[in-house]
Amino acid sequence: MIDFYEVIGLVAAFITTASFLPQVFKTHKTKDTSGLSLTMYITFFIGIVLWLIYGIHLKSLAMILANSITAVLSFYLVLMKLKYK
Amino acid sequence: MIDFYEVIGLVAAFITTASFLPQVFKTHKTKDTSGLSLTMYITFFIGIVLWLIYGIHLKSLAMILANSITAVLSFYLVLMKLKYK
Repeated sequence: MIDFYEVIGLVAAFITTASFLPQVFKTHKTKDTSGLSLTMYITFFIGIVLWLIYGIHLKSLAMILANSITAVLSFYLVLMKLKYK
Repeated sequence: MIDFYEVIGLVAAFITTASFLPQVFKTHKTKDTSGLSLTMYITFFIGIVLWLIYGIHLKSLAMILANSITAVLSFYLVLMKLKYK
């Protein structure tokens, strides 16, 4: 059975991942990347990959889920920035 | 001694927290909150507090540090948005 704190983690994962989505949708739709900082998103992507490695080490489902999805989304923003700069 | 994965976590904590700082500095300096979504930052703040609770449960120094600082910073952005809307 999944314990109480794992549920807290999964809710946290859902909320912080969801809060990243509007930016992705907006950029995907408008192709306007002028307001995005390439350096920031590359740095953020590296940070998220490190959180993912750390989460795998801790065997935390919440961290693995949240950081896998956020890694893909932030990498997609980096690609969009490179393509539509 | 602090182990290898804890160092990975601390570097991740440093990077993702640092990537949040430019927004805080910019908003603090300009008082321009027109581009900030109140709903998004309140939701994000709640998510970060849940990550903090989860990190305390996991006894993860990296998660406790990163989410404490990010909780304070995102709460400050919420306050700025309410004050300068």
